[in-house]
Amino acid sequence: MLRTEDNEYITRVGPGTPMGALLRQYWVPAMLSSELPRPDCPPVRVLLLGEKLIGFRDSGGRIGLLANLCPHRGASLFFGRNEGCGLRCVYHGWKFDVDGRCTDMPSEPPDSNFKDKVRARAYPCVERGGLVWAYLGPREALPPLPDLEATQLPDGEYTAIAYQRNCNWLQGMEGDIDTAHIGFLHFGSDQADDYLPGTFKYYALKDRAPRYAVLDTPYGAMYGAYRPAGPGQYYWRIAQFLFPFWTMPPTGLLGGHMVGRAWVPMDDEHMMMFMVVPAVNAEQRARLGSQGPKLPELLPNTTGWLGRFRLAACEDNDYLMDRDAQEQDEEYSGITGIHLQDQAITESMGPIFDRSQEHLGSSDAMVIRVRRLLLKAARALAADGTVPPGVDSPEAYRQRSGGVILDADADWVSATRSLREAYVSHPELDPAVVGGFV
Amino acid sequence: MLRTEDNEYITRVGPGTPMGALLRQYWVPAMLSSELPRPDCPPVRVLLLGEKLIGFRDSGGRIGLLANLCPHRGASLFFGRNEGCGLRCVYHGWKFDVDGRCTDMPSEPPDSNFKDKVRARAYPCVERGGLVWAYLGPREALPPLPDLEATQLPDGEYTAIAYQRNCNWLQGMEGDIDTAHIGFLHFGSDQADDYLPGTFKYYALKDRAPRYAVLDTPYGAMYGAYRPAGPGQYYWRIAQFLFPFWTMPPTGLLGGHMVGRAWVPMDDEHMMMFMVVPAVNAEQRARLGSQGPKLPELLPNTTGWLGRFRLAACEDNDYLMDRDAQEQDEEYSGITGIHLQDQAITESMGPIFDRSQEHLGSSDAMVIRVRRLLLKAARALAADGTVPPGVDSPEAYRQRSGGVILDADADWVSATRSLREAYVSHPELDPAVVGGFV
Amino acid sequence: MLRTEDNEYITRVGPGTPMGALLRQYWVPAMLSSELPRPDCPPVRVLLLGEKLIGFRDSGGRIGLLANLCPHRGASLFFGRNEGCGLRCVYHGWKFDVDGRCTDMPSEPPDSNFKDKVRARAYPCVERGGLVWAYLGPREALPPLPDLEATQLPDGEYTAIAYQRNCNWLQGMEGDIDTAHIGFLHFGSDQADDYLPGTFKYYALKDRAPRYAVLDTPYGAMYGAYRPAGPGQYYWRIAQFLFPFWTMPPTGLLGGHMVGRAWVPMDDEHMMMFMVVPAVNAEQRARLGSQGPKLPELLPNTTGWLGRFRLAACEDNDYLMDRDAQEQDEEYSGITGIHLQDQAITESMGPIFDRSQEHLGSSDAMVIRVRRLLLKAARALAADGTVPPGVDSPEAYRQRSGGVILDADADWVSATRSLREAYVSHPELDPAVVGGFV
Repeated sequence: MLRTEDNEYITRVGPGTPMGALLRQYWVPAMLSSELPRPDCPPVRVLLLGEKLIGFRDSGGRIGLLANLCPHRGASLFFGRNEGCGLRCVYHGWKFDVDGRCTDMPSEPPDSNFKDKVRARAYPCVERGGLVWAYLGPREALPPLPDLEATQLPDGEYTAIAYQRNCNWLQGMEGDIDTAHIGFLHFGSDQADDYLPGTFKYYALKDRAPRYAVLDTPYGAMYGAYRPAGPGQYYWRIAQFLFPFWTMPPTGLLGGHMVGRAWVPMDDEHMMMFMVVPAVNAEQRARLGSQGPKLPELLPNTTGWLGRFRLAACEDNDYLMDRDAQEQDEEYSGITGIHLQDQAITESMGPIFDRSQEHLGSSDAMVIRVRRLLLKAARALAADGTVPPGVDSPEAYRQRSGGVILDADADWVSATRSLREAYVSHPELDPAVVGGFV
Repeated sequence: MLRTEDNEYITRVGPGTPMGALLRQYWVPAMLSSELPRPDCPPVRVLLLGEKLIGFRDSGGRIGLLANLCPHRGASLFFGRNEGCGLRCVYHGWKFDVDGRCTDMPSEPPDSNFKDKVRARAYPCVERGGLVWAYLGPREALPPLPDLEATQLPDGEYTAIAYQRNCNWLQGMEGDIDTAHIGFLHFGSDQADDYLPGTFKYYALKDRAPRYAVLDTPYGAMYGAYRPAGPGQYYWRIAQFLFPFWTMPPTGLLGGHMVGRAWVPMDDEHMMMFMVVPAVNAEQRARLGSQGPKLPELLPNTTGWLGRFRLAACEDNDYLMDRDAQEQDEEYSGITGIHLQDQAITESMGPIFDRSQEHLGSSDAMVIRVRRLLLKAARALAADGTVPPGVDSPEAYRQRSGGVILDADADWVSATRSLREAYVSHPELDPAVVGGFV
Repeated sequence: MLRTEDNEYITRVGPGTPMGALLRQYWVPAMLSSELPRPDCPPVRVLLLGEKLIGFRDSGGRIGLLANLCPHRGASLFFGRNEGCGLRCVYHGWKFDVDGRCTDMPSEPPDSNFKDKVRARAYPCVERGGLVWAYLGPREALPPLPDLEATQLPDGEYTAIAYQRNCNWLQGMEGDIDTAHIGFLHFGSDQADDYLPGTFKYYALKDRAPRYAVLDTPYGAMYGAYRPAGPGQYYWRIAQFLFPFWTMPPTGLLGGHMVGRAWVPMDDEHMMMFMVVPAVNAEQRARLGSQGPKLPELLPNTTGWLGRFRLAACEDNDYLMDRDAQEQDEEYSGITGIHLQDQAITESMGPIFDRSQEHLGSSDAMVIRVRRLLLKAARALAADGTVPPGVDSPEAYRQRSGGVILDADADWVSATRSLREAYVSHPELDPAVVGGFV
């Protein structure tokens, strides 16, 4: 549990909050690149860390992210004209470039130099891995992007998706470093005996209450959840948390899979999950068959502040829960699909869950650890400007997660490191579709 | 009128409020039994006294009422699996019985005793008269249920209904102890001469401004509204208020009719009216014909917190008011049906009416009296734990209401008592359909 | 810009606020007369200066504007019976006349004099120019109506319309004294060369950054925006602000056109724009042809507090913006019609724009001036009851606006006065359709 004041501290991320200051030290995924498909395309309303922003791609293809309201008299730049390397407010024609400079002010006399004194709030943006990354922080010299491998793949070799979730970002993120729920929320209706002995899933379902090892890392924390496998062996599920909101869930074989998930606050009660993974090619898809993940249905995007990447199944329709399927134990939760199950559960905790009401068990070790790290980093930043983990260490983000069978006396941490290195050296090993276990 | 602070005091009933503490001394109708039709049926979201609760019927048929959020990490138990004498959270499989005990905690190692240390907030429930009654109070040894006669009839001999109303509970309840509005809101377009001299309705419409007698009782208060009837006679309408929110409107002949209405706060701005009355059999229904009460149309229930027993006619559609019918004096209010008229008027006062703006007349004597009793009881409970009226006196609730013609010098109070006794002794007298006057 | 506290001061107008007190010194347009089409017609919910009121026309044709809630027990008078020179509450039959007197109290005994002690809050109303004017102020002896010429035309010779806008009143009003946006928001896609040299529009589009002269007046302020016209000449656009919320936009020829627009707060986040102009007759309409103004489509009125005169194009549908039309420069904003463009821009600033974030240029001189006048008048009233400008000077409102070509050394102020006088003396000059420039 967290004391109520710590819960407030860790969940609130708007301008002026300590946790908001922490997140603003990092590059933050703001949009999918595909939301701005071409130069001078229509601007997009972007709600990010409690700030209303307008994203646009200028005539030169650069991304701008400006404060919603024109610095002149406050009209929304959403209605602006995206033209000639800038976004022009339609109220009085003032035009701003991606850096926030006012490059034209036609309502003032030609001899006025007022436009040199006016700037729109603008956040630097870059694109990589299908994401638009924004820096909302204080540095003049921008920090490097993190070396998240999935986001460093060549064009065409990755897939980037986004889902909106209607709750505080921490609820979403905590759900993704919580391996304990897999055997219940996602596979509670599956039985070990339905799977081949020796597979991850067989062991995972055989023992749904694994032990946990949790470890601080230079970039965040990692956990290993282990349970008996063959004689003298353990099945380990090993996963990463990377500052400030990245997770690498342990899909497939340890070290073989690249993935990055960012749990990005839109405001304190809404978040956007961005995920980048290697693209699945046709051959892989054929091999996966019906084992592939069931992606939730999205509503068409609207132009509203909360109109992007909304799930069709939602609180209002009880996530299309099927009580019969639940009662007959066809589907433990009655809700279909892993992502939707997570969405339902974390949203059901309310917009901002009050963690002072919790009762944490041994399976919550990773959640506890990550909260402490976040609080500690935010407090250190607030106290004396301590640069939080990872900001200046892009290479620290070269991590992978996954499952592995290890001898009882093996070191799970070095196994994690060396298996990643093995797969980096031998990319011809295609683990993307091996595991078949989320 | 009430001072603003008294109005706040008497209307707010959430956890920690003095009036909320008063209500929590009593058994409170929470649901209709029919909302949980069978063992292990789907759970129901129940909003009660400002608390979000999940109602369920376990495998043994017992009713549970648990706090919405799982004590572990706060997932909603609404999505829970109702199975094996307990409700199991689908996040990590923790299972709770109707008493809130954690009976299974499969995400922790088998040797853990953590489950013995965790309890879900659970409120005891019983069923009687078609209602699920919950006790949200502090006593270990539960108080008795009140002897409300309508709720003590054998199965099949009563009818229990519920209507949600979008306003504070006190507005609803006050409307039901206010006999003065009958001749206006409900029968303002009726004329005495349309009725046979000698009937209740004839007298009621002949004189719409009766005098009032109001009396404290051991269980609350009763009023008699009287106006001239035949020579040397008065027509009395006598009705009951019973702590903390029960009313017995004066339908039909005094003493002959059993009814109980509870005005139960869902939260401070929504309430549920529960009513239990003897069932009307086919013969009675035939006799009543079109004189029977017009029940309001309900929308289908949803699973939402405010989704139960909503009226189709509501504020958004002006309660389907017919201005022409009003203007041509076919229907005084233009709104059809007694219950809907009451719903419209009490909701029109706003979510929580500010009683400091009132101007009370002599017809408001009962309303004034009941407010004083409620405030006094809440203050005494807050001051020194004084047990409020009726909590330990179930027999005090054996009361009836109704209309009667009495000689000018008759004692209305003893008439009320003795007429009830007469009907209790002679149930073959069927007064249920005699009065024809609400 | 305004300091945050001044922004609060000038935008909040509910009961008890200083700016609310200022507005309550004046007659305020509350409804169109046509909303109450006949004696004893259905009452109308009117939200005005943050007060919920019920407007009705009594049997004698007089307008009443009563507080929503009955002074007895708080039922809404909206459901009241409009009959026999009064509005009768349907709860207990109490009846109130347009002056708020209780003229019948049938729920009390005939010998009661309680009704003489009860009054409904009632605001005096008069009708003129198609508007229902209400006085919500403190004076016993009512001030005179302002001599706004458009509102003094005979029946049949004026047109009165109303549009609701979902933002603070000041945003709406400021947009109407801001001539600088015309060449962008409204005509940004028009080119000077598309018009005949010598026309207002030609000059206006040739130079979109005019110079400004701004002047305090006994009734408010006036501005002249001037730019080069023919040799030694300027094209002047001259317009009026009149206390407390009236504007006269410079449509057509200076002096020739009568118009009055009131920017009336419904509450702090919604306003109603009322406009009265001379009626356009068939011959004029034929001459105007497609040059006539495009009026926005209205949704059918509902009976809700915010149900009157809503625009079909609104924030939720991005005002039916056409991005293609914007991109191809067919329509600068992509939004169709001058009123709708203003609606979109001023609503896009948010419910109450925070003026501490502004950067005002030379083109904002009139906006700055009017804010100062409003703040000064509100502070003087609050300090010592100083009667604000115009309250007792109805004749001060005899003003007109418009465009004119003046010699470089001409006095724009006396031109404004004398041209109005010329048109008043020679009404046969029909300038209503001459200008063709908003």
